[in-house]
Amino acid sequence: MREVAVIGAGITKFGERWDTSFRDLCTEAGIAAIGDSNVTGEEIDELFVGSMSAGRFIGQEHVGALVSDYVGLGGELHVPATRVEAACASGGLAFRQAVASVASGMSDIVIAAGVEKMTDVGDATDVLAGAADREWESFAGATFPGLYAMIACDYMHKYGLTREQLAKVSVKNHHNGSMNRYAQFQNEITVSTVMNSSLVASPLRLFDCSPVSDGAAAVVVCPLEIAKKYTDTPIKVIASAQAGDTIALHDRPDFSTLGATVAAGNKAFAQAHLERKDIDFVEVHDCFTIAELCAIEDLGFVKKGEAGKFTEEGDTYIGGKLPVNTSGGLKACGHPVGATGIKQIWEVVQQLRGEAGKRQVEGAEIGMTQNVGGTGATVVSHILRRD
Amino acid sequence: MREVAVIGAGITKFGERWDTSFRDLCTEAGIAAIGDSNVTGEEIDELFVGSMSAGRFIGQEHVGALVSDYVGLGGELHVPATRVEAACASGGLAFRQAVASVASGMSDIVIAAGVEKMTDVGDATDVLAGAADREWESFAGATFPGLYAMIACDYMHKYGLTREQLAKVSVKNHHNGSMNRYAQFQNEITVSTVMNSSLVASPLRLFDCSPVSDGAAAVVVCPLEIAKKYTDTPIKVIASAQAGDTIALHDRPDFSTLGATVAAGNKAFAQAHLERKDIDFVEVHDCFTIAELCAIEDLGFVKKGEAGKFTEEGDTYIGGKLPVNTSGGLKACGHPVGATGIKQIWEVVQQLRGEAGKRQVEGAEIGMTQNVGGTGATVVSHILRRD
Repeated sequence: MREVAVIGAGITKFGERWDTSFRDLCTEAGIAAIGDSNVTGEEIDELFVGSMSAGRFIGQEHVGALVSDYVGLGGELHVPATRVEAACASGGLAFRQAVASVASGMSDIVIAAGVEKMTDVGDATDVLAGAADREWESFAGATFPGLYAMIACDYMHKYGLTREQLAKVSVKNHHNGSMNRYAQFQNEITVSTVMNSSLVASPLRLFDCSPVSDGAAAVVVCPLEIAKKYTDTPIKVIASAQAGDTIALHDRPDFSTLGATVAAGNKAFAQAHLERKDIDFVEVHDCFTIAELCAIEDLGFVKKGEAGKFTEEGDTYIGGKLPVNTSGGLKACGHPVGATGIKQIWEVVQQLRGEAGKRQVEGAEIGMTQNVGGTGATVVSHILRRD
Repeated sequence: MREVAVIGAGITKFGERWDTSFRDLCTEAGIAAIGDSNVTGEEIDELFVGSMSAGRFIGQEHVGALVSDYVGLGGELHVPATRVEAACASGGLAFRQAVASVASGMSDIVIAAGVEKMTDVGDATDVLAGAADREWESFAGATFPGLYAMIACDYMHKYGLTREQLAKVSVKNHHNGSMNRYAQFQNEITVSTVMNSSLVASPLRLFDCSPVSDGAAAVVVCPLEIAKKYTDTPIKVIASAQAGDTIALHDRPDFSTLGATVAAGNKAFAQAHLERKDIDFVEVHDCFTIAELCAIEDLGFVKKGEAGKFTEEGDTYIGGKLPVNTSGGLKACGHPVGATGIKQIWEVVQQLRGEAGKRQVEGAEIGMTQNVGGTGATVVSHILRRD
């Protein structure tokens, strides 16, 4: 297999983008990534788009072809475009397919994009429930806040996590988001903001939940051996790992351990020939505050049951032992579901290039991502390194 | 890149499967393919599922994980599962991603499945319209029969195709379907059946249109070098090509030439180092009768404008110069959209193994597929050869 590098990245402002359509968001991010990578349209061999539910959000399937067309690749250039979907992990899988395409030698220059336009429908919660087992979870009334609340209850019961520790995940992510001009929320909050916000699904409150968002992100990958032709700072992809699990939460042996995160994380570290201590920072899937705690444990950074204390002590802040979600995470940066996995890669690229501004992790050389679909039926993890 | 072979294939009966759920269809086809290939669950590295619009048809996204779980791969085995979508070309793309995964060395044993459960909603036509440009085609009232009717009008005007010639595509496909026990329609029809059926979108009548169907199909691929361990008759994948085009029909320079079919076909022949005359039979995307005529021309088998005459003279029958859609095609075999691309591969495998029974193409050694998304914004083509 060939080695693969990221040579460009682009993103839109995340948020309630009433002024902007699905296709405009894609075009904005795609053009930014193409510009950043110094490639021309004629050089692009293939395009992968991650989108969870464009069919239900905007009545549009076939979004690979749509995006390709609107960034100018679909017509005379006839560039192949493929949408990949695994609920909220769709973006991470689009990146993985792009890496596979280059690694295999099938393509040289490939775009991986992610997009979602969620604010155009009334009931985003029901659309999102399509990521769970529709017949045995959603039809019975389970929503995503409800499912993650069950994970949180199980975790609190087993490990004595406090409500305040959970709130601190959100406080830290809002702090990081305040330094990211693309973030949906750029305001600081306090523990009491979280504790006094509306109860959504006990014990989760409004400020434990990532928002409904519009947004897109895109990156360009190519074989490492030609990356220097396009950029002085190629970012090497040193691991690309994916794992699955049962679609329904109730079929798992342990609610508060995501088996697919454990499996994908182990595969990623084996591929990269690295240990946990080698990772300088990590972007994980904090769709709800509890998910961030599970993620850093299941990836092996923190012992099971200790992520609450680790967070309380400030170890996940920039400058801490393991900076987590420097972008602001899903909570503050926003969570346009299909775009999130690509935004994680975008953030890692900003950090490894030393271009993350006020939220820069000093001397960052190796970054990792973890992107989750549903309650963990799909997990995809990447490790990237400054070349 | 490693050479790739198909070592197993399975399919469900296509049709109105009121008795069977989405997940049951997947399981039926998946288990059949796994059984046919003599692999065990533990050996399977990855799964790709093609499905166009499970979100709108059954309210379920994240169908890669769902399918993997229900065929027993999602739980303890943590097998990665990815859904790929490009409207009616979703199945063909799932196969292509499976081939890429094996070719790259990322995986060894990979399942490619395709599925759609279409009869559970009232308005399948509107769901299918999500394959077109929702904003500039579907919202303006265009349906798929309407769009293909425009292609047919343009073609008739330019090349003098007769209504009777068009009908003969359907007559031939019903004849082939009558010999396929998995086909939705296994009855012969005549030209007058087509000519006297209801007008859907002039000049297309009911019997020019593929039906709304439920069904699933699955195949198993692995590196050619280990294929003989599993089967005496591995089928080699000698080309895997994909191309895109504008999402909207009205943005193309020529309505009745699918630029993406031309591009994908040319790429496929270049990869396989073959000429048109080397192909023994072809499975093409006859979502409407006119589409079959365009396909065999745009792939280069017949000169532009002459496919009507070619069909009228019986050259596309089994035993003719170029047998087309021996399975019965989308028209008679049925068109559960996400499953169609995999069904095409399944049919090629049956033929190349010499297991196609009454519809066997004598001495078949090389078969080709062409699978279309929308009105041609995505086309994927494969060439397979008896090893």
